Amino acid sequence: MSMQIIPVKIPSDIESGDDLIEILLKTKAGRELKEGDILVFTQKIISKQEGQKIELSKVKPTLLATGIASAYKKDPRIVQLILDETKRIIRMKNGIIISQTRHGLVCANAGIDESNMEKGFATLLPKDSDDSAQRLRKRIKTKAGKNVAVIISDTFGRPFREGQTDVAIGVSGISPIIDYEGIQDNFKRVLRVTAIAIADEICSATELVRGKTLYTPIAIVRNYAFDKKNGTLQDLLRVKSLDLFR
Amino acid sequence: MSMQIIPVKIPSDIESGDDLIEILLKTKAGRELKEGDILVFTQKIISKQEGQKIELSKVKPTLLATGIASAYKKDPRIVQLILDETKRIIRMKNGIIISQTRHGLVCANAGIDESNMEKGFATLLPKDSDDSAQRLRKRIKTKAGKNVAVIISDTFGRPFREGQTDVAIGVSGISPIIDYEGIQDNFKRVLRVTAIAIADEICSATELVRGKTLYTPIAIVRNYAFDKKNGTLQDLLRVKSLDLFR
Repeated sequence: MSMQIIPVKIPSDIESGDDLIEILLKTKAGRELKEGDILVFTQKIISKQEGQKIELSKVKPTLLATGIASAYKKDPRIVQLILDETKRIIRMKNGIIISQTRHGLVCANAGIDESNMEKGFATLLPKDSDDSAQRLRKRIKTKAGKNVAVIISDTFGRPFREGQTDVAIGVSGISPIIDYEGIQDNFKRVLRVTAIAIADEICSATELVRGKTLYTPIAIVRNYAFDKKNGTLQDLLRVKSLDLFR
Repeated sequence: MSMQIIPVKIPSDIESGDDLIEILLKTKAGRELKEGDILVFTQKIISKQEGQKIELSKVKPTLLATGIASAYKKDPRIVQLILDETKRIIRMKNGIIISQTRHGLVCANAGIDESNMEKGFATLLPKDSDDSAQRLRKRIKTKAGKNVAVIISDTFGRPFREGQTDVAIGVSGISPIIDYEGIQDNFKRVLRVTAIAIADEICSATELVRGKTLYTPIAIVRNYAFDKKNGTLQDLLRVKSLDLFR
């Protein structure tokens, strides 16, 4: 049976406090939601809905932020937001700031983004994307009576390879990694690949149907059997001591 | 319209010289192939089909390979194969060897794999996966009269995040990256995300339907519009001078 990836178009941009599930359930795809579907929401609409949209004129950059901004030809207010969201700078070179955010994510610019917004604004990542995912999943259960999984997706670069791909920054109702440890292959040998980050693969799959505009911020993955054991973002993050590149 | 990911089950393991397209076209999914489909083949069956399966008893490890193997508790013959396939060692720690292969890929163990094979054998990566993809694409055109794209997929780890995901190691008939540079978003602002590695996202999407056994080594992606301009693996590889982690 084939897996389906269904884009969900919404009629307008999302504002702080909007009921995303009400908006979803008014769409055709939302009305046809099925038990066992996986819903993937972009970081951007979650951040907007949760009020993580920042007016840059209200940000007061420190001298450090102003200094970095000047060397990197960036907006000092954006650099200030990056520093505020950063636990540890990993690399700062070629005008790129890679840091570990306070959520534990390693990414460029601490996930701060100015695209698909009025000029003078930027979004921070959701405060806790696992919580966001759980809230959405529970609301779907309440409003539509369906048990689904929810993943929050963002678009990150990666070392070694060109181009960005979508990865999970929060999950609910799904175990984000399939562990094959100890599982035998068709020749009764233990598999070399021991764990697959299916939540990241699901996010990447949905990016393909979304494109990069405002009005397709949700996608539904159907006919994919997954482990409903509740996982968290932390399952997807390598601890520093085991990371060969930090 | 939703995108579909269709797994293709084959009846038996692949041997060197098998006609993969004949085998594909005998399956139900193969008979229903459509113009504009993307076919994703796993590295493993391409390597087997192309005779890149190595009998370990015929490998003579050097003293260097034997030394590394002893420190890393690995098979010295496997280490020898890794060194043979490696252009440059990137990291060697915690029993893990990350190198840049002669194809330019940065991955663990130079892509050498012992899973899903009889004991005493290992596969090397295909010599040139772009060529492999092109050969398969042309053969589909000849045998089935359909214009498709072909991608060769392998399962790699990555820094910072747990779990592995599938990425492209060869492409034909598709541009592997969508470049949004200069494209405006819904607010007439230039998008921050400038390039998406769709070929890697497609590979990840198909991994979800394949699982990790022998008999589903092909998947078909349908209803995904893509740029048919022919790209290569090199489009997906960051050059060392622009890489912050080498």
